[in-house]
Amino acid sequence: MTSQARAAIILAAGQGTRMKSPLPKVLHPVGGRAMLDHAIDAAEALGCERVIVVVGNHSPEVRAHVVKRLGEGAIAVQDPPMGTGHAVLCAKDAMAGFEGQVVITYGDVPLLKASDIAPVFGGGEGVTVVGFEARDPSGYGRLLIDADGGLEAIVEHKEASPDQLKVTACNSGVMAAPSGLLFELLAEVKNDNAKGEYYLTDVVALARGRGAPSSVVFADEDAVMGVNAQGELAVAEALFQKVQRETFLANGVTMPAPETVHFSWDTEIGGGATVEPFVVFGKGARIAGGARIRSFSHIEGATVAAGAEVGPYARLRPGAELAEDVKIGNFVEVKNVKMAKGAKANHLAYLGDGTVGAKANIGAGTIFCNYDGFFKHHTTVGEGAFVGSNSSLVAPVTIGEGAMVGSGSVITSDVGPGDLALGRAGQQSKPGWAARFMDAMRAKKAKSK
Amino acid sequence: MTSQARAAIILAAGQGTRMKSPLPKVLHPVGGRAMLDHAIDAAEALGCERVIVVVGNHSPEVRAHVVKRLGEGAIAVQDPPMGTGHAVLCAKDAMAGFEGQVVITYGDVPLLKASDIAPVFGGGEGVTVVGFEARDPSGYGRLLIDADGGLEAIVEHKEASPDQLKVTACNSGVMAAPSGLLFELLAEVKNDNAKGEYYLTDVVALARGRGAPSSVVFADEDAVMGVNAQGELAVAEALFQKVQRETFLANGVTMPAPETVHFSWDTEIGGGATVEPFVVFGKGARIAGGARIRSFSHIEGATVAAGAEVGPYARLRPGAELAEDVKIGNFVEVKNVKMAKGAKANHLAYLGDGTVGAKANIGAGTIFCNYDGFFKHHTTVGEGAFVGSNSSLVAPVTIGEGAMVGSGSVITSDVGPGDLALGRAGQQSKPGWAARFMDAMRAKKAKSK
Amino acid sequence: MTSQARAAIILAAGQGTRMKSPLPKVLHPVGGRAMLDHAIDAAEALGCERVIVVVGNHSPEVRAHVVKRLGEGAIAVQDPPMGTGHAVLCAKDAMAGFEGQVVITYGDVPLLKASDIAPVFGGGEGVTVVGFEARDPSGYGRLLIDADGGLEAIVEHKEASPDQLKVTACNSGVMAAPSGLLFELLAEVKNDNAKGEYYLTDVVALARGRGAPSSVVFADEDAVMGVNAQGELAVAEALFQKVQRETFLANGVTMPAPETVHFSWDTEIGGGATVEPFVVFGKGARIAGGARIRSFSHIEGATVAAGAEVGPYARLRPGAELAEDVKIGNFVEVKNVKMAKGAKANHLAYLGDGTVGAKANIGAGTIFCNYDGFFKHHTTVGEGAFVGSNSSLVAPVTIGEGAMVGSGSVITSDVGPGDLALGRAGQQSKPGWAARFMDAMRAKKAKSK
Repeated sequence: MTSQARAAIILAAGQGTRMKSPLPKVLHPVGGRAMLDHAIDAAEALGCERVIVVVGNHSPEVRAHVVKRLGEGAIAVQDPPMGTGHAVLCAKDAMAGFEGQVVITYGDVPLLKASDIAPVFGGGEGVTVVGFEARDPSGYGRLLIDADGGLEAIVEHKEASPDQLKVTACNSGVMAAPSGLLFELLAEVKNDNAKGEYYLTDVVALARGRGAPSSVVFADEDAVMGVNAQGELAVAEALFQKVQRETFLANGVTMPAPETVHFSWDTEIGGGATVEPFVVFGKGARIAGGARIRSFSHIEGATVAAGAEVGPYARLRPGAELAEDVKIGNFVEVKNVKMAKGAKANHLAYLGDGTVGAKANIGAGTIFCNYDGFFKHHTTVGEGAFVGSNSSLVAPVTIGEGAMVGSGSVITSDVGPGDLALGRAGQQSKPGWAARFMDAMRAKKAKSK
Repeated sequence: MTSQARAAIILAAGQGTRMKSPLPKVLHPVGGRAMLDHAIDAAEALGCERVIVVVGNHSPEVRAHVVKRLGEGAIAVQDPPMGTGHAVLCAKDAMAGFEGQVVITYGDVPLLKASDIAPVFGGGEGVTVVGFEARDPSGYGRLLIDADGGLEAIVEHKEASPDQLKVTACNSGVMAAPSGLLFELLAEVKNDNAKGEYYLTDVVALARGRGAPSSVVFADEDAVMGVNAQGELAVAEALFQKVQRETFLANGVTMPAPETVHFSWDTEIGGGATVEPFVVFGKGARIAGGARIRSFSHIEGATVAAGAEVGPYARLRPGAELAEDVKIGNFVEVKNVKMAKGAKANHLAYLGDGTVGAKANIGAGTIFCNYDGFFKHHTTVGEGAFVGSNSSLVAPVTIGEGAMVGSGSVITSDVGPGDLALGRAGQQSKPGWAARFMDAMRAKKAKSK
Repeated sequence: MTSQARAAIILAAGQGTRMKSPLPKVLHPVGGRAMLDHAIDAAEALGCERVIVVVGNHSPEVRAHVVKRLGEGAIAVQDPPMGTGHAVLCAKDAMAGFEGQVVITYGDVPLLKASDIAPVFGGGEGVTVVGFEARDPSGYGRLLIDADGGLEAIVEHKEASPDQLKVTACNSGVMAAPSGLLFELLAEVKNDNAKGEYYLTDVVALARGRGAPSSVVFADEDAVMGVNAQGELAVAEALFQKVQRETFLANGVTMPAPETVHFSWDTEIGGGATVEPFVVFGKGARIAGGARIRSFSHIEGATVAAGAEVGPYARLRPGAELAEDVKIGNFVEVKNVKMAKGAKANHLAYLGDGTVGAKANIGAGTIFCNYDGFFKHHTTVGEGAFVGSNSSLVAPVTIGEGAMVGSGSVITSDVGPGDLALGRAGQQSKPGWAARFMDAMRAKKAKSK
């Protein structure tokens, strides 16, 4: 068949009351990305020229989320909810003028990828449904497939005959049809059922009644799983992570305990990198081959070049850019800082909003004081500079190339290249004071008991 | 049958030599709570008006633990150990005057809940045993049940006939009987067996000999598992955690990786809260719905209100009370500190023994110096105050409302509202010193190789 | 049979291109130890008087690794690679003068222990092969065993007949033979096969042709698994960790969540110790019974005595030696420091290169400033000393017994016993400054929006 224009209608109107969460159901993340965005991603990857999201009126956050990503034109409102068929019908105006194949997907089916959906566009002139072989079909609508492989009808579980109940081919709810046919059929769907709802699945039988050949394409059961509660969300996340782990292993990432590494949907790690046990990648992490991410590290929005070593217990936040051979050690937080080649911050430090030159050494306990309570300011540490331990660099401030800062200094003014800056009081001694104090306190403590 | 008074005898005399641990077996924790306490909890939840714990003389810690919780009257001593029947008999004096149903449970069966035990109180006038269907009955005593469902006898594995070995209904050891009957039967139990011990299970046959109807109630095999070695303790813990995770998910807690979150028996988390991967809850954690606990956090004895965000890498210790919208960030420890609404400590800080006012900001590297080596003192930070990075607040000390503390200051005296306090030396510069020093050191290092 | 001299030839010439890693395949670690070292360990544990490693010319790191451990004499070079039989033949010169049994093992079979291999030395006068019962034999060479248990031949999968394909006894590749016979047979092996390679397995049929009785000894399939890609490396690691966990549990280590604890091959933990969830042991960790390792700790090259408590979030690095009752708390790093009995560092500190006396207390935020950019120096803290929070001890420096250091001090000179040292500026107050500053900043911020 010839290539046709494609569009997607994504149903996202369900409230998800079983989630018991203030966050609308479809905005719950899988792999760090809202379930709804996974659905939109798939639609876009399929080349859908129009993507309409049907939302309810009960969750303005969903509407706002869609508008921000796709614009106002992508919104169709279903209010009140009167079934899945009605939901799709609510998108009719938004689809005006579109001619081609329309696929209907869902905001709470986060594992369904474009490659799972693509075959529906190769279906017949009727309705093409994504089915799956259910391990336990109980509760699912059954796909009645005729001898020629055509789809006769979808029978809901409770209306199925004993023979039909034995069918394990089930309906995922995802389906495609030519735009014109789809809305014609939906107009014929009735709500004369127990719930008084308009069911999308009825279009299959209606299509057949018209002689439009309907068909089924199959996807893996895991791919079509819907999420209606936190337990299912956790299962979806586990399946998502499993695929990510296998992919990275296959790409040559060394992970002694892959089951303890958690990825976001957009994590990038080059082959030859090592990721030790217990690492979390938030969104936007890019790790080069040859980098080493040690245990208990948390990395988000950061890039790590080859030869760099991060952790254990390193927190890289957005804007952390580590060049080759940079070392970020334990209990160190880096946010919005570019570290040039070979720079180091090995112990207990906060580096926020700055640039650190090549081979500079940031001592233990150093703080980039980037925040004055109102604005953030920049710290610059020059190439080869040595910042002594427990220093406070009060931004905006520049430590010149090859300069040194004495331990425990508070630096508020720029330090010239090659200069030493100190900001500390001289050491004083009170001979015997500690002995007398401890004696007195011991006596006091003994009395207090 | 009419409701009767209830009592429990908990056997806790076993030494647990397979544990190879200085800690007495029954004090090993499951879900952060000593196994013995789980048994006492169950007895109390069942409304037992008397709870007697039979202890040996070899572990004074167990005795002390029971006395502390239940008082001296709850102790019965078995010395030397001469079997389970003998152990129960040792509680006879402690049970003097009690008339009603007595249940016998164990200090090393940590997963047995009140709801598993409750049915024994609905049993007949004879002995009511908690049985279980064993996946592998090998080694367990078999329950011989007659056609009417009555319990004929308990046959030990090694004395069972080939037909009896096929029985999968097994004895958990937990049983109940009317107090009078129980001790009468125990007086008749003989020790004419290989081990020379008095077996509690003999009371079943003795009761039947008297025509007292004995019966069985069934519990899940997991619920009645006994713990005799660290491997079994780990299995019990895993089963305990599994139930906790499923419960929290069902209650609407979002957990992307529930299998990486560890709870205590008393952890409370409201629906709508989020708990990221790799979090440990020690005892006494109370998290409100809408709070967010980020990865690598460790929370014990702390309360976290809605809108608060904790971690990653936050350690909340007992007495940490976070009001709404409080933020505790990475590598921050909070102990015995009340943080008012919107207060923040985002990076590398120790907050011990204090109060922090609403919207106050505690800079990176700040330490509440609460300990002088002998006593702990209180730090007060007022509403809207701004404590600069790397500050040391030497308690007792108060930072007033809207006051500021300059970075790197050591504050030993109170700071008035709206005042700025500084405690740092002026910055000095030694031009060219660093360059000369580095040159000299480079030369020295080259020579030393 | 009589005890004979033993030698091992370890094949380590494979490039492991599926690893996609700059690290040569056989140097990838399992349990923190290069796979090749596991093979050498096994050979040495078997009492092999000569251990030859056959390396390729493509990975000088492997050669260097072997030379460092075993010396130049242990190297045999295969260049270019012409099959496994050719690889063994390359060791002929290195084996000159050796008479006895030679076992051939592999650098990428990390789970094979000496006890798995030992039976080959009890084999016949011919070739003795280590076989395994394959769960899925597909792809493996099948062992054709005659009615007397003798090994007839090894048939490669693709050359096997339908009946032979049903055989589940498979070839691990590990085999032993008398030195003289081995090299005679190898000289007869031909490369007239599709790949044009000399196959080691051909020696079995050749031995039979000479009437030399060949035989099989069996090992567990897991023990003989080879590693050719990161996914297999992760599986090997998981199997390794599983054994370690079971061993430590059996030895009486309490671990509530053993599946979250990762060990190195040489980790030592005494019975009665407790290890909480999420702990990583790097190489060289020795933990005494009665010690407690809390969650999120990372321990490498360190010893921890009884009664000591480490973590949560403690990092012990090589040379950390904790005596009895030492406490190392959260976000504390200890490297090359001896801590005497009862010494404490409970919060956010870096202790590098030093000695800390008994019952000394290192305050929160303290840094041992051990590095001047070129050399490392030593810090000594005397018994019972009290180092105030946020102090910087600039090494080399000594804090005397019972001395005190005031919070926030930078200590550059020795402090005498019982003395108090301070190194901080006096506190200054600027009344109303903060209020004026905040007002001005608020206005500026409002304008900037």
